Amino acid sequence: MIRFNNDYSRGAHPRILQALADTNAESYGGYGIDPWCEKAAAEIKKYLDCPDAEVHFLVGGTQANFTVIAAALRPYQSVISADSGHIHVHETGAVEHCGHKIQALPAADGKITAAQIAEEARLYAESDIPEHITQPKMVYLSFPTEYGTIYSKRELEEISAVCRQYEMYLFIDGARLGYGLGAEDADVTIQDIARLSDVFYCGGTKCGALCGEAVVLVNPELRSHFRSYIKQNGAMLAKGWLLGLQFYTLFQDGLYFEITRQADEYAMQIKRAFAAKGIPSYIESSTNQQFVVMENRLLERLSQKYVYEFEKKIDETHSCVRFCTSWYTTQAEVDELTADIMAL
Amino acid sequence: MIRFNNDYSRGAHPRILQALADTNAESYGGYGIDPWCEKAAAEIKKYLDCPDAEVHFLVGGTQANFTVIAAALRPYQSVISADSGHIHVHETGAVEHCGHKIQALPAADGKITAAQIAEEARLYAESDIPEHITQPKMVYLSFPTEYGTIYSKRELEEISAVCRQYEMYLFIDGARLGYGLGAEDADVTIQDIARLSDVFYCGGTKCGALCGEAVVLVNPELRSHFRSYIKQNGAMLAKGWLLGLQFYTLFQDGLYFEITRQADEYAMQIKRAFAAKGIPSYIESSTNQQFVVMENRLLERLSQKYVYEFEKKIDETHSCVRFCTSWYTTQAEVDELTADIMAL
Amino acid sequence: MIRFNNDYSRGAHPRILQALADTNAESYGGYGIDPWCEKAAAEIKKYLDCPDAEVHFLVGGTQANFTVIAAALRPYQSVISADSGHIHVHETGAVEHCGHKIQALPAADGKITAAQIAEEARLYAESDIPEHITQPKMVYLSFPTEYGTIYSKRELEEISAVCRQYEMYLFIDGARLGYGLGAEDADVTIQDIARLSDVFYCGGTKCGALCGEAVVLVNPELRSHFRSYIKQNGAMLAKGWLLGLQFYTLFQDGLYFEITRQADEYAMQIKRAFAAKGIPSYIESSTNQQFVVMENRLLERLSQKYVYEFEKKIDETHSCVRFCTSWYTTQAEVDELTADIMAL
Amino acid sequence: MIRFNNDYSRGAHPRILQALADTNAESYGGYGIDPWCEKAAAEIKKYLDCPDAEVHFLVGGTQANFTVIAAALRPYQSVISADSGHIHVHETGAVEHCGHKIQALPAADGKITAAQIAEEARLYAESDIPEHITQPKMVYLSFPTEYGTIYSKRELEEISAVCRQYEMYLFIDGARLGYGLGAEDADVTIQDIARLSDVFYCGGTKCGALCGEAVVLVNPELRSHFRSYIKQNGAMLAKGWLLGLQFYTLFQDGLYFEITRQADEYAMQIKRAFAAKGIPSYIESSTNQQFVVMENRLLERLSQKYVYEFEKKIDETHSCVRFCTSWYTTQAEVDELTADIMAL
Repeated sequence: MIRFNNDYSRGAHPRILQALADTNAESYGGYGIDPWCEKAAAEIKKYLDCPDAEVHFLVGGTQANFTVIAAALRPYQSVISADSGHIHVHETGAVEHCGHKIQALPAADGKITAAQIAEEARLYAESDIPEHITQPKMVYLSFPTEYGTIYSKRELEEISAVCRQYEMYLFIDGARLGYGLGAEDADVTIQDIARLSDVFYCGGTKCGALCGEAVVLVNPELRSHFRSYIKQNGAMLAKGWLLGLQFYTLFQDGLYFEITRQADEYAMQIKRAFAAKGIPSYIESSTNQQFVVMENRLLERLSQKYVYEFEKKIDETHSCVRFCTSWYTTQAEVDELTADIMAL
Repeated sequence: MIRFNNDYSRGAHPRILQALADTNAESYGGYGIDPWCEKAAAEIKKYLDCPDAEVHFLVGGTQANFTVIAAALRPYQSVISADSGHIHVHETGAVEHCGHKIQALPAADGKITAAQIAEEARLYAESDIPEHITQPKMVYLSFPTEYGTIYSKRELEEISAVCRQYEMYLFIDGARLGYGLGAEDADVTIQDIARLSDVFYCGGTKCGALCGEAVVLVNPELRSHFRSYIKQNGAMLAKGWLLGLQFYTLFQDGLYFEITRQADEYAMQIKRAFAAKGIPSYIESSTNQQFVVMENRLLERLSQKYVYEFEKKIDETHSCVRFCTSWYTTQAEVDELTADIMAL
Repeated sequence: MIRFNNDYSRGAHPRILQALADTNAESYGGYGIDPWCEKAAAEIKKYLDCPDAEVHFLVGGTQANFTVIAAALRPYQSVISADSGHIHVHETGAVEHCGHKIQALPAADGKITAAQIAEEARLYAESDIPEHITQPKMVYLSFPTEYGTIYSKRELEEISAVCRQYEMYLFIDGARLGYGLGAEDADVTIQDIARLSDVFYCGGTKCGALCGEAVVLVNPELRSHFRSYIKQNGAMLAKGWLLGLQFYTLFQDGLYFEITRQADEYAMQIKRAFAAKGIPSYIESSTNQQFVVMENRLLERLSQKYVYEFEKKIDETHSCVRFCTSWYTTQAEVDELTADIMAL
Repeated sequence: MIRFNNDYSRGAHPRILQALADTNAESYGGYGIDPWCEKAAAEIKKYLDCPDAEVHFLVGGTQANFTVIAAALRPYQSVISADSGHIHVHETGAVEHCGHKIQALPAADGKITAAQIAEEARLYAESDIPEHITQPKMVYLSFPTEYGTIYSKRELEEISAVCRQYEMYLFIDGARLGYGLGAEDADVTIQDIARLSDVFYCGGTKCGALCGEAVVLVNPELRSHFRSYIKQNGAMLAKGWLLGLQFYTLFQDGLYFEITRQADEYAMQIKRAFAAKGIPSYIESSTNQQFVVMENRLLERLSQKYVYEFEKKIDETHSCVRFCTSWYTTQAEVDELTADIMAL
């Protein structure tokens, strides 16, 4: 079986395993205070334009999300998200468990707009009973989204402008950041991400690492006692260098961007194959996640050789499913799949 | 100025003040363990059909809501509510502050349906990744709703059946319970409320008391250590008899039901006056809250003598506003208002 | 039975009930935005020296405690308290329920010292792993304490100085403030309380009101969105004027201070009677709570006519008990008790 | 520099790295549902006597602690711990952040006694105002403790008996479980740990793994929806097999017990060297952590070659420090240290 169901079903890029083996006999200080974390932060910051940003390495995405949100918000403040946002639908209420309301906005393609956000902010700003409602103080968005779609530079600039107008933080969940930046139609760079947001993270788990997310605190307001939040939320790895070493390996020569861009290219090959067979996309995506609507009997045939992810039933005979490439996907695997699609 | 803006803008029914004065020199045990609380509970239970129900007296509605929800749910469980539900839009995220997600369902008239609830419950029950989502374990609804509408007995029976099928608790917010039961088209009794729900409360604050909500725990599962939850959530009044005495006064001879039914009748007179003038309801309500859509220039004229509550802008020249009667509204006040409406 | 068990076993001072009756027909805006709350705040502030302080009226003490603490602290911050502090031992973990650790310090007489506090603050300030421990950011103390003892002006000045040195807030729980200020050996005034603390409250529940605590926010940092915290924590009374009216009545001509000082005098009469009989104090208190150690057989005799509060067993034949006077205690009741003590 | 400061300053046992390399090209289902987690659970359970226990793999210790506690306790319930317990002093208030009070008991050597626990439980059970205090529902202890000491089988049996008498859960933090079981004077086996507790964990981070703690849920009551708690608390690793594979490697042939027992032996050599030089232990420990009280001038000399952990100042010229062996410590390193101690 060839796995196209997600981008976290295989270990790590071989260079990461090699780095772990090469350094296994060395010893370090604990809890993220070590040379590898320091060097990894420096490498990531080379790509940015904010020399005083802080970079922290957390273990996973849900954890990164609620730790950042818990650190940013006061109890009466809420976070705006797309109704398909990961924090709203796939994290077991972790944000609410931390005490904060999510204001979910409708987002058919996974994206929310500056206008929607401005409307929420305005409702609070103009309320004559603000103490009865929560204050939207943060906007959470994923780049790319849970549907593989990406925001354009102009969209992000508009959202960022609204956030600054209403003094809200912009938090960009980059669990799949590489796949977003590597899309053929992306006009956003990682500098843009850092310039327009207050905090974001570069996902490691889905982009070549064993685990780990690199949280970049751009806005100085969010840096206060952030390590206390990391520890309190169980996100501080005793052997922190394991994360630093992985991110150093991924960023020191651009490997992170290269392997995710390659996965996007493979996804485009698969997308074209589906299109050629007249199998429609559920949502147009230019990144590594491809959602298509297929007849169940055709899916049945593909499922003999491939693992994909079932998303939802469309009607009695059709389903929406996800085919997902990854940093470990090979041209041979893609060739096999595209041939089998064409042969359906 | 005559206040029709809400039902909590005046003190208490005179018989309550009299009872307070009559008993002021007596002394009692504290924290709700006193004869008045005991007698009030007994009076309320006379109207019900569940002799082993527990009745607890809390101070206010928001407090009653989050205390009940905190007592009922485990951290991974959520509560289903109409998107216009008080807990979702007017309590500053108090439920989330207690750690729980609200699953808000669209409800144009403030009411949710058994079908909507069943769909949410089914999605969880059939999920192959239930640990990534919250479990809907409670359904919250208000009777009457925030828009003054009421559920029919059949609707409540259907909702209750779904709750029992999926082992969810049904929690009925009765902040305005009397106004709901007293509506001319209500086919629900307080016995029905108790029979069909797991927990509900009889609102005092809006129905004749200075303050206080009588929470009735029907389902034995919800009774465990409920007083601990009351205390932890700041809802245990040191002089608990103040609440017990008020509810005893309201329930011992049916005063509670009489004064709220009267307010509903006054609301119908106002509703008929608006209708006679061709001023449409925003939502059809048979209880003490009437929402109408009016021209701003007519509103301007009424605002010389009356206080009403602005709800929202409809268009450049129209607004939706609330006129609300109460246990303290008089026939003279209503006559004056209806005459002025007719004279618009 | 004459109740000396606590100071919250009877209704309200007659002038409060009269004020409620006199104004019952008036109507007001809700949620603490009304003329009585405004006037009460103004009256309280006349006693202080901080014209820009904010005064908010909450319903009860536990609620006031956790609302203030929730508003003041970030998630990684803790509050220092005596190990006998009300928040530590009698509020069902409400502060922890809000997410904050209490650092309890040993305090044999209910009082903590500036030196103890400084040591805790220093440990954090000098820690080389501060992210692994909580930051003490607030000091909570009660005036008078749970044992009826009071801090001297010098002690409070020293504590306040430590708090300012380490940028910690000083929060004074004044549930029995009047009884503390009215003690014959008190050298602290309410101006001192306001001058030396960042936030404190004047208790109403135990000092003549039906319910209510007047929270005074001295430090501007603590004022931000405080009404949002009140609402979120269920502490915002819909009919807020009920609290404002009571505090106006208590403070507009000094009734608050007069009735509590009187109760202290009665307590001194009782204290002298016990001393005359050789019945020792458990802790020396000059306020309305008197803790004595008595033979159980003597207690048995007093319990025929009086209600007192059992505190703890001292040995097989002795117990520590509390006799508590109150604003409603009369000279006749005290005469009867002292005579009976002398007759033991 | 040779590190004796802690047991988490080097990567993983070489066989773990080898296993990672050997399996890197394989692919798996995510979130802990994979063959390695299944096999690891089976291997661990071979050592136990409770075939229906559930084993879950979490990433770190703080996380394991608060996730277990959050899953076990209701909001009004608290956890008893030694005042030196890791959850009380080194986890940034994570347990309180989850809403629960820790009842800290004095424990000079890091251990609490059955008698202390019984007294707390009795106070609650006999309280006439239980709703004002938290219910101790769980006992947390570490084996070995933060001071390296271990409970005897008899002590654990007594504690377990008290827990069962009062219906409290016993939770054993085994972050260093191997070092505890491997001590020369240990009379406790891992079967005993499972038999006497309701939940415990086998620490991986400090015992040979890169990261990971294997939580064993013995008591069926604690198993309900535990995966939901793992996810909500950010403790569910997307690539869960990384944890399963490590624990499989450690447990399938007893490597876990062998390497930790070896570290204990090395610690005994160091202990004997200190004793021979008349350098006293701060606390007598038979496990891999040795706390000694030394003259600062001697420490200064050792610090030229060795890293140790400073614990606290004893007086102007003496300090308490920790020397800690680990699974990666070698006989050569120990020989060098003991020779240098003898040469002081």
